[in-house]
Amino acid sequence: MAKKPLNIGMIGYGFMGRTHSNAYRKVGNFFDLEYQPVLKAACARNEEAVQKFADQWGYESIETDWRKMIARDDIDVVDICTPNNLHKEMAMEAAKAGKMILCEKPLSMNTAEGEEMCQAVEKAGVANMVWYNYRRVPAVTLAKQLIDEGRLGKIFHYRANFLQDWTISADLPQGGNALWRLDVDAAGSGVTGDLLAHCIDTALWLNGGIADVSAMTETFIKERVHTETGEKKKVGIDDACAFLCHFNNGSLGLFESTRYARGHKALYTFEINGENASISWDLHDLHRLNYFDHKDDSLIRGWHSVHVTDGDMPYMDKWWVPGLQIGYEHTFVHQVADFIEGLSSGKPSSPTFRDALETQKVCDAVLASAKDRSWHNV
Amino acid sequence: MAKKPLNIGMIGYGFMGRTHSNAYRKVGNFFDLEYQPVLKAACARNEEAVQKFADQWGYESIETDWRKMIARDDIDVVDICTPNNLHKEMAMEAAKAGKMILCEKPLSMNTAEGEEMCQAVEKAGVANMVWYNYRRVPAVTLAKQLIDEGRLGKIFHYRANFLQDWTISADLPQGGNALWRLDVDAAGSGVTGDLLAHCIDTALWLNGGIADVSAMTETFIKERVHTETGEKKKVGIDDACAFLCHFNNGSLGLFESTRYARGHKALYTFEINGENASISWDLHDLHRLNYFDHKDDSLIRGWHSVHVTDGDMPYMDKWWVPGLQIGYEHTFVHQVADFIEGLSSGKPSSPTFRDALETQKVCDAVLASAKDRSWHNV
Amino acid sequence: MAKKPLNIGMIGYGFMGRTHSNAYRKVGNFFDLEYQPVLKAACARNEEAVQKFADQWGYESIETDWRKMIARDDIDVVDICTPNNLHKEMAMEAAKAGKMILCEKPLSMNTAEGEEMCQAVEKAGVANMVWYNYRRVPAVTLAKQLIDEGRLGKIFHYRANFLQDWTISADLPQGGNALWRLDVDAAGSGVTGDLLAHCIDTALWLNGGIADVSAMTETFIKERVHTETGEKKKVGIDDACAFLCHFNNGSLGLFESTRYARGHKALYTFEINGENASISWDLHDLHRLNYFDHKDDSLIRGWHSVHVTDGDMPYMDKWWVPGLQIGYEHTFVHQVADFIEGLSSGKPSSPTFRDALETQKVCDAVLASAKDRSWHNV
Amino acid sequence: MAKKPLNIGMIGYGFMGRTHSNAYRKVGNFFDLEYQPVLKAACARNEEAVQKFADQWGYESIETDWRKMIARDDIDVVDICTPNNLHKEMAMEAAKAGKMILCEKPLSMNTAEGEEMCQAVEKAGVANMVWYNYRRVPAVTLAKQLIDEGRLGKIFHYRANFLQDWTISADLPQGGNALWRLDVDAAGSGVTGDLLAHCIDTALWLNGGIADVSAMTETFIKERVHTETGEKKKVGIDDACAFLCHFNNGSLGLFESTRYARGHKALYTFEINGENASISWDLHDLHRLNYFDHKDDSLIRGWHSVHVTDGDMPYMDKWWVPGLQIGYEHTFVHQVADFIEGLSSGKPSSPTFRDALETQKVCDAVLASAKDRSWHNV
Repeated sequence: MAKKPLNIGMIGYGFMGRTHSNAYRKVGNFFDLEYQPVLKAACARNEEAVQKFADQWGYESIETDWRKMIARDDIDVVDICTPNNLHKEMAMEAAKAGKMILCEKPLSMNTAEGEEMCQAVEKAGVANMVWYNYRRVPAVTLAKQLIDEGRLGKIFHYRANFLQDWTISADLPQGGNALWRLDVDAAGSGVTGDLLAHCIDTALWLNGGIADVSAMTETFIKERVHTETGEKKKVGIDDACAFLCHFNNGSLGLFESTRYARGHKALYTFEINGENASISWDLHDLHRLNYFDHKDDSLIRGWHSVHVTDGDMPYMDKWWVPGLQIGYEHTFVHQVADFIEGLSSGKPSSPTFRDALETQKVCDAVLASAKDRSWHNV
Repeated sequence: MAKKPLNIGMIGYGFMGRTHSNAYRKVGNFFDLEYQPVLKAACARNEEAVQKFADQWGYESIETDWRKMIARDDIDVVDICTPNNLHKEMAMEAAKAGKMILCEKPLSMNTAEGEEMCQAVEKAGVANMVWYNYRRVPAVTLAKQLIDEGRLGKIFHYRANFLQDWTISADLPQGGNALWRLDVDAAGSGVTGDLLAHCIDTALWLNGGIADVSAMTETFIKERVHTETGEKKKVGIDDACAFLCHFNNGSLGLFESTRYARGHKALYTFEINGENASISWDLHDLHRLNYFDHKDDSLIRGWHSVHVTDGDMPYMDKWWVPGLQIGYEHTFVHQVADFIEGLSSGKPSSPTFRDALETQKVCDAVLASAKDRSWHNV
Repeated sequence: MAKKPLNIGMIGYGFMGRTHSNAYRKVGNFFDLEYQPVLKAACARNEEAVQKFADQWGYESIETDWRKMIARDDIDVVDICTPNNLHKEMAMEAAKAGKMILCEKPLSMNTAEGEEMCQAVEKAGVANMVWYNYRRVPAVTLAKQLIDEGRLGKIFHYRANFLQDWTISADLPQGGNALWRLDVDAAGSGVTGDLLAHCIDTALWLNGGIADVSAMTETFIKERVHTETGEKKKVGIDDACAFLCHFNNGSLGLFESTRYARGHKALYTFEINGENASISWDLHDLHRLNYFDHKDDSLIRGWHSVHVTDGDMPYMDKWWVPGLQIGYEHTFVHQVADFIEGLSSGKPSSPTFRDALETQKVCDAVLASAKDRSWHNV
Repeated sequence: MAKKPLNIGMIGYGFMGRTHSNAYRKVGNFFDLEYQPVLKAACARNEEAVQKFADQWGYESIETDWRKMIARDDIDVVDICTPNNLHKEMAMEAAKAGKMILCEKPLSMNTAEGEEMCQAVEKAGVANMVWYNYRRVPAVTLAKQLIDEGRLGKIFHYRANFLQDWTISADLPQGGNALWRLDVDAAGSGVTGDLLAHCIDTALWLNGGIADVSAMTETFIKERVHTETGEKKKVGIDDACAFLCHFNNGSLGLFESTRYARGHKALYTFEINGENASISWDLHDLHRLNYFDHKDDSLIRGWHSVHVTDGDMPYMDKWWVPGLQIGYEHTFVHQVADFIEGLSSGKPSSPTFRDALETQKVCDAVLASAKDRSWHNV
């Protein structure tokens, strides 16, 4: 009863290339699945770098031309881990070639691109998914479960932050392999697409659609040296972005992201307040969920700090024993496991390209609102 | 070298009447001051209730007509603890009578009223102050001190919340002595004037002026029985309010307040992110200040949880010993002490009516912005 | 229906003199009681100092001879706030004079002294109480209530710490008004009587009697200058003390106290683990109680952080509104209120001298065990 | 420059079998090492179970006779993941066969056994190590580094707890594959060898040797059904154990462990108080280190909550980016990496069998002290 191979072709070898490779390698040790990912090929323009990456992770082969890799018969899944401006072209090609696609987030540079990509994969009928990995933090998945059980009741408020502090120095350059996220041509936007997109994806999943937004953005450092030219260049991305919104369910939303919040490395937090109960979570202690239930006996009513490590918590029966926490990397393992289960069951796992397009729409509305200082419908 | 008496005439006997009375009684036991507050008269329309209040607190006399009390020669200070819609009339009368005035916040129903009040006290040349008591939480005063020392450097972000959950039930009526804060005629606004005003006052003090705002408000429960009529009446206040803003120093602000955040009783929090350091605080653990300093050696860099109880912390040399916390009521004692020191030094203590008017202007801009869904300059 | 006066004669004017005076002054503003404490006389050998104290707190008169004050007809209650070595003599005299007695903790220098004191007050039939104030922290009182309701079930473990760091410097002298706690002649013991006594009192109250103990003590700084002589003198107190014990109910106990725990100012903590539920508390955030209930639905099971400020919490209906915390000083107000209610009801409030003697017995066993390095029965 | 293979022969397939297998598989992806572990053979008596385990983890072969596996030429390292009563026999055999040995903790059933094992590996000259994995939590390694840098100064106190709650139910049986830790014949002791051994190993590493101990143990549930016989049998293990001790450096120690602390799943905590600074850590938030430095400016002095995820923290340059936490399993990866680096450098990584024997000696003294209720030298 051997597992069927699922041949992965990875494009990119950066931070996300590592998280995904790790997930492919581990998933079979912890989850009983029909398919076993096989690290078939790694692809990037820089031959030496990609060879080193392939050696480190055990990819069977390398390619330096992504079109060639996509064309290979022995590749089942194309995993796109490149800067955002390359997502569309690669996804279109992969769809055309009938490959399954796992694409890094955000889906695309904008809604228009994303819509094309959706149509392409739908037309091709290929399995597709976007790496909004935070849905698969067990504590976040548990939040979804508690909400779906109706424990919170009518929702009044949703707020989310994604706070970092790594770009405060004006000496940091933009562009290149390491810092493409600061280069608007490669990234499309700054914190909006990089960080708020995560917050929005989770919010849409937990709390439904967003109707309208009022946003502001700021670029604190106006010019940075570009890595490729060595010359100062205007910074085109948003360093910070905040927006107000109304959800379709009548609740109010407040979102903020920045890379200038000294003291926060990757503090993604959200809180949701319902009529009966509230939930909060943060990425710096990702293995905990905070839960308040008004129905608790008043004498012992208070926020519960739930250490999400027991076997009845989402995904946690696969790992260790109660009290022993997992970390960031496991979210990718869960996503691969769910993707594979989607293949087996025929019920695609979320977020598909189409699901992820909704986040893109909100991002576009946010950026447009910040630009013309007015409310925008999504 | 006996202390000089400072005769207090209190209008109102509700929650704030209690906190102020306690402060007047205690201040002399802990602070060495030139003046000793004397509880001369308590005033309210309900004779029985005000007599009971006077007995409990040791007021020497009562009045049922506030004009009469203001007119009394043996009153030095008029303390206005009534619903917001009465502040102006009383303050004008007290100023005319040459009395010092301590007025509950918010200063007024709106900026126009507030401007009149400012002119009245300035013309009369009487000492005046508004009870934005949270400036005198030692941890908050310490935050001000750290900012003034330049520890944070250039400021990028300011965010503040004031979250409560006490009006979620639709069965709660509006109006009357207990619930005038839900009646727009008495309160002027909902959370904006009641809760956000605190957040704004602190923000202006810590981070300077606000240039413009984009706001949204919501009234979740549209109708509530009015206590005085027993009939359902449209709810005119804002149940929740959030706004984006730019400070004059270039930092971005995000403010939110609600009475529908299940799990939060009176969670006033703020965080300020500077180039070098960040600060955060919350009212539920008011005796702690959280501080992050990027200059800390990287191996031990992290948020400091400062237990603000040592003798070198603001106000804390007056109280107990390190480790033993004070509470909410002490903020009022500190404010009385500072007011009296202002009298002795001739240097008025903040926030004066004029200082508090700035908060009123922001509140007005916020409410206007929420109404027409556009950015408003303050 | 005026309140009856309860005339207080205070001996001592140090830290405890201030906390008690504040409690006497405030209690009537917040609690409806039959008796109103009146600050009749303050007594200490240093006339100038006690006069200053009396002025600050509003004592009507002073005495410099405690026997004289005890003898005064206009004194109802003698409050003993002196170093431990004076408790017995004063209490015996006060009992003989038929006065009620409120005595600072620990009750006495040792069990033998304490037994004499108990017999004296019992023979005289006078109301008596010892200032183990931490029982009246609302969160601690709530813990008692939860335990008495049977929520914890069979108890397995009790652990308590009282950690300070104020005597680490070898330059700190011993003895005199300020530092008598470091002088074994005045204090009897070090952390055992000063800090562990609090932990033991709470433990006996919450978890019942202690059967036997195994202890160790340490004096880290062997010699300190004595304030009165200016000369180095052997340090006779214990700087640190820890002990294991068995409670009569079969649970295991672990206690530790020190003044050498860098980073802790007055960190009194306890935790109690029962079959069904657990409780923990610490003095640095005294307004919170942590509660874990195994009966909670497993998905949201975790420690509750209960913000003990609602009106249905012990004592909290007397103070402010939910979310607004009280502090250290209020524990003394509560104790005075309970003492007075004990007078009205004829049902003495705890801990009486007899109750406090139990703590003394444990302290004696602890010190004896540390001395001969063997288990001692209590 | 291919890596050299390091052929692993694993005995056991339980919880520890999984954590070690995962470590062997991952280490090469994240660490650049001379040797690459190869999962050569898995061994256990139950053929079906071990085959399933081998399939899940990719072991190349299986054995059902551990002597046979040890004898195989293609095995370099024997990894002993069996119940404690089998450690010695297997280790002696492996040493005789000239194999490197990685042995689960505790090293042995008692000091005598452990001494034999030490002599065997030392005589054979084979690399050896014991899986006290918590030394390699980055926050714990960082604690070691801070102590070695002298930041804490003279140490006064060390306290550690390991609290669990999984054996409270009297219905839980003892013995068998899953519950051998409750069977004294397989485990040797209860929490002392299972949990306190971890605390002791860390303590000896961080704070040096222990001179003497006074302990108490308790078995709350006196009889449990034995899995193998289905009959009630006396419980021979200690359910809880606590002890006082003196370290050789003059500091005082306090240790406690139990499986009856409701609310704690695997709460291993330690705190160490020095003259200048203190450190605390707990396993439930293993990615944080708490640090207090008295030299901090007094206004911002407080416990630092250090999120141990930056690249300059121990091991963390190998993983993700600041803010993204690792979990429990990574401690084993670190241990494998260090073991391999020890092979390359010729400088054996700690804890060797000889290092681990020190923990055994303390455990023996603790159990002896609990038995005869007297202080025991280690």
